[in-house]
Amino acid sequence: MHHRTLEHLDLLCAPDPARKTFALQWSVPLGSARGGVERDGFSPLHVEMAQRGGGGRDAKEFAYALDNLGVRRSVRLGTHFLHVDVVGLPEALLPTITLCADAIREPNITSEHLKSAKLLVNQGRRSVEDDPGELARDHLRQLHAPAPFDRSDYGREEVVAAANLESMHQDWSEWSRCKGGRFVVAGDVDADRVEEHLRRECGQLEWTNRTLAPLEIGRPKKSEQKFVERPLSQVHLVWAWSAPTLHDPLRPVWQVLSRVLGASGSGRLFQDVRQRRSLCYAVGGGWAPNDDFGRFMVSAGTTPDRASETVQVVEQVINGIKDDPPSQEEIDRAKEGVLSALTLRRESTSARAGALGNHFTTFGEIWDPTKELQAIQGVNRETVLQALSDWDLGDPWAVALGPTDPFSEVAS
Amino acid sequence: MHHRTLEHLDLLCAPDPARKTFALQWSVPLGSARGGVERDGFSPLHVEMAQRGGGGRDAKEFAYALDNLGVRRSVRLGTHFLHVDVVGLPEALLPTITLCADAIREPNITSEHLKSAKLLVNQGRRSVEDDPGELARDHLRQLHAPAPFDRSDYGREEVVAAANLESMHQDWSEWSRCKGGRFVVAGDVDADRVEEHLRRECGQLEWTNRTLAPLEIGRPKKSEQKFVERPLSQVHLVWAWSAPTLHDPLRPVWQVLSRVLGASGSGRLFQDVRQRRSLCYAVGGGWAPNDDFGRFMVSAGTTPDRASETVQVVEQVINGIKDDPPSQEEIDRAKEGVLSALTLRRESTSARAGALGNHFTTFGEIWDPTKELQAIQGVNRETVLQALSDWDLGDPWAVALGPTDPFSEVAS
Repeated sequence: MHHRTLEHLDLLCAPDPARKTFALQWSVPLGSARGGVERDGFSPLHVEMAQRGGGGRDAKEFAYALDNLGVRRSVRLGTHFLHVDVVGLPEALLPTITLCADAIREPNITSEHLKSAKLLVNQGRRSVEDDPGELARDHLRQLHAPAPFDRSDYGREEVVAAANLESMHQDWSEWSRCKGGRFVVAGDVDADRVEEHLRRECGQLEWTNRTLAPLEIGRPKKSEQKFVERPLSQVHLVWAWSAPTLHDPLRPVWQVLSRVLGASGSGRLFQDVRQRRSLCYAVGGGWAPNDDFGRFMVSAGTTPDRASETVQVVEQVINGIKDDPPSQEEIDRAKEGVLSALTLRRESTSARAGALGNHFTTFGEIWDPTKELQAIQGVNRETVLQALSDWDLGDPWAVALGPTDPFSEVAS
Repeated sequence: MHHRTLEHLDLLCAPDPARKTFALQWSVPLGSARGGVERDGFSPLHVEMAQRGGGGRDAKEFAYALDNLGVRRSVRLGTHFLHVDVVGLPEALLPTITLCADAIREPNITSEHLKSAKLLVNQGRRSVEDDPGELARDHLRQLHAPAPFDRSDYGREEVVAAANLESMHQDWSEWSRCKGGRFVVAGDVDADRVEEHLRRECGQLEWTNRTLAPLEIGRPKKSEQKFVERPLSQVHLVWAWSAPTLHDPLRPVWQVLSRVLGASGSGRLFQDVRQRRSLCYAVGGGWAPNDDFGRFMVSAGTTPDRASETVQVVEQVINGIKDDPPSQEEIDRAKEGVLSALTLRRESTSARAGALGNHFTTFGEIWDPTKELQAIQGVNRETVLQALSDWDLGDPWAVALGPTDPFSEVAS
C-alpha cells in the first residue's frame, strides 16, 4: 500500500493485481459537519448536484459518459467529506478520474439543477417520516451527538430553501478547493499511473491555499429519554451509551467487546433479547466510535405490550457486562469472529478502499491489516477487564417511537 | 467449476484459490411455495428453528460452535428452498458442513423453540406493517403472483398458530429428506475434499426416496390497481408488468433492456422520473424473472401532491419503450453496464455461490460466465426490437399506499 502527498490532497493506493476490478473513493472536504449552521443544508444540495456532473457536459451527457465506461457510482454525504465512490473494470479507471475531476472543477450548479436538488432533498426528508427506524435514529442523533455531528442528512429546511446559485457556487469553491481532500483507490490498479494522472487532473483545478480548520465541537449533551408518539404497529427503540473514541488505546479490546455484547450469533444481545425471550424480530447493536466521540448503539423493534420488557432487558444486558464480565471462552469466541470478519471484509475492493481512507483520516497513517490482526490476537481477559473498569457508561440516551411510551412503564 | 450428483442432492463447486475465504449455500427443499396452503406458515417457523441448531447441541451450544469457527451465517426463506448461507475462512469449511448436517439431520424442534419461533414470526409480520415500501410490495405480490408464489414471508397467521411439535417434525422430515436438495460452495475450497466430507455427512442423514413434485402453479391473475389508505407522509407506489420468464430465448436482450429502462445512471426511469422531474428521491426498477413467470417491477415514493404525476410518468416511460425503442447508443451503453456488473458481481464469493446455485436449479446445468458474457455481447438492435415487439406488457398490477389515491386522480 502506498501513500503519496500531492499538493492539495492525499493519495492512498492499495494495488491488488489478483482483482479484476477497481474501487475509487474521492473525498471532497464538503461534509455536513463543515462550517457554521448557516450552511447546514448546502452539503445535501451539493450531493444532488455532484451527480449532475460538470466540466462542459450537461447532466445527461455526464451520466452517459460514465455509463459508457460501465462504472457503478454513488455520491454520499459524510460528516467530514462528500464521497464520490466508483467501482468498475480496470480500463475505466483513468477516464473515470478525469470525469470526477471535471465535476469537481466545474460543477453543474445551474438554476434548473438547484431547483431539482431542493425538491429531491425535501423528498428525502419526507421519506424519513415514513421510516420509523430511521426516524428514531434521527431523533436519537439530535439528543446525543454534540454539534456539528447532530445535523440531519437533509440539512435545515430553511437553509435549503434559501440557497441560491451564488451561495452554492461560493460554498462549493470555498470548501472543495481547500487542502485536505483524500483520494483512495484499491484493486487492479497501477499506483504510478494513477498518481501521474491524478497530478495532471489536479493541476487543472484551482486551489485556495486554505487549510481545513478542525471542526468546532459543541458541549456534550446530557442523557435523556424521549418518547415520540406515532400510530404504529410496533415500538421502535434506539439507545446510545457513552463509549470510547477511535483513539482509545484499548481499541482492539473494544472491537472484541462489541462482538461479545453484539446482536448476532452468540452475542449477549442476540441471545438474551431475541433467542431466549423472543422480544424482537430484529435487534442490532455494537460499538460505534468516531474520531471525536464514541457510542455503544442498540436498536430494537417490538410489539407495544412487550416494549417495556424490551427496554429493561436491553439495559440489563448492557449495564450487566460490568458485573458479569465475559469469560475466557466468550472472549476467544469473539476474537475468532472479529479476525474472520476482518478477512471477509478485505475481500471487497470497495470496503478495502473505504477502510484505507477512514484509517488515514483518523490516524494519519497507512492502514496495516497485519498490525490490526495482531492487535486483536493480543486481546486477553486482563485487557478486557481493564476496558470494562474504565468504561463510564452512565445513563443512555434513548428514543422510543410508537403508540405507547415504554419508558414511563419502566419507571413506574 | 464442477457438478457432482450425490445420491440425494447436487453438489456444485467453484474453487478459486486466489480467495482467502469460502462461501457455502446449503439449500433444503423446504421453500415457502412447497406443498399445499395447509403448510403455508411452516417454512417461516423452520427458518427460525434451523437457527437453533441440532444434532445433540442445544441452541446456545450450537451458536457457540459456529462462532468458535468464526463464520458468518444466515438462514433465509426462498420459494423453492430454505437456504443456509455461510461465509468464513477456509479452515472452517469442513466443520461448518458437519454442523449444518447436524441441524438438518436432527433439528432442535422443541416446544420451547416452537413457542419462540411463533412469537418471532408474528413479530416479523407486525414489523412489515410499519415499513410502507415492504407493505406495498406485500400487497402487490398478493395481486400479481400466481399461487403458490403469492405466499407471505411470514406465512398464514392461522397456520403458524396451529403448528405443533408433531406437525413440525413431520413437515421437516417430509421435505428435507426428499431428493432434490442443492449444495454450492465457492472460494478457497478443495472440491474433492468437500465431496468426500459431504458424502460422509449425507450418509448419516435418513433419506426418503421421494422426488420433489413440480410446484402446482395457480391461474394467472388479472391486472388490478389497489389503493391502501394509510396516514403516511408519502405515497408509496409499486408496479408489476408481465414480462418473459428466465427461460425466454431472448434472456440476454432482457438483461440489456432492464438496464435501458432501469432506475440508475442513464436508465430511462432514473432520468425521467428522478433527474428531470424530481418526482421521487428513490425510484427503483428492473426485469424480475422467475422460472415460472416474469415481471418488470418498479417502485417509487413521492409526496401526495405529486403522486398522480408520478403514476403517469412511470407508466409512460414503461409503455413508451415500444414506440420509442432504444437507440444503438443506448443499447451499447446498457451492454457495457451489464458486462461490467457481471464482472463486479463475481468478485463476491457468496454472490458467485448464489448465481451458481440459481442457474443450476433453473437450467439444470453449470453456470458458464464466459458464455453469459458472450450472449450479452451478441445483443444488437435487431434482437432488442424483436424482444420489444414480442413483449405483451398489457396493464400493470399496481399498489399505492398512503394518504391519497393517486389512481383515481389519473383516471379522472
